[in-house]
Amino acid sequence: MNLLSFLSRRGTAPVARERLQILLAHERTAFGNSDLVAVLREEILAVIAKHVAIDQDKVKITMERGNSVSTLEIDVELPKAVHQAA
Amino acid sequence: MNLLSFLSRRGTAPVARERLQILLAHERTAFGNSDLVAVLREEILAVIAKHVAIDQDKVKITMERGNSVSTLEIDVELPKAVHQAA
Repeated sequence: MNLLSFLSRRGTAPVARERLQILLAHERTAFGNSDLVAVLREEILAVIAKHVAIDQDKVKITMERGNSVSTLEIDVELPKAVHQAA
Repeated sequence: MNLLSFLSRRGTAPVARERLQILLAHERTAFGNSDLVAVLREEILAVIAKHVAIDQDKVKITMERGNSVSTLEIDVELPKAVHQAA
């Protein structure tokens, strides 16, 4: 599975809101670190929270672990003009 | 533009290597923070470098800034079995 096929299942529709989407795919070998996606998920969320005010109700996280590929999707709806300047 | 159309232009081919791909899209309103993607790029790269040994020659970064959507792609080829356990 590649990221394209992953995304094609999502059925996104255009929205007028401000939002941030992050997609992450870790293609592993047999010796690959299977926990990398879970670790990066927490750290990336912390990074986002440093720069924008995140309403936990407006965060959608989807993580899938496959034999060779793990994927993570983070979808954050941002409050308008409330988040800090970077 | 959505992430799907962004990805469809990439022409990825399956590879046997271990790698990490991150795609980020920031859909902005008129008042949106236009520098958010650039800020997150640096911080996400720092987060990755904390957990895996990154060869700078094996990192590909693509950033596009549109009127309403900014996108970022980070593609990292990971050294086999060299990166730290998370």
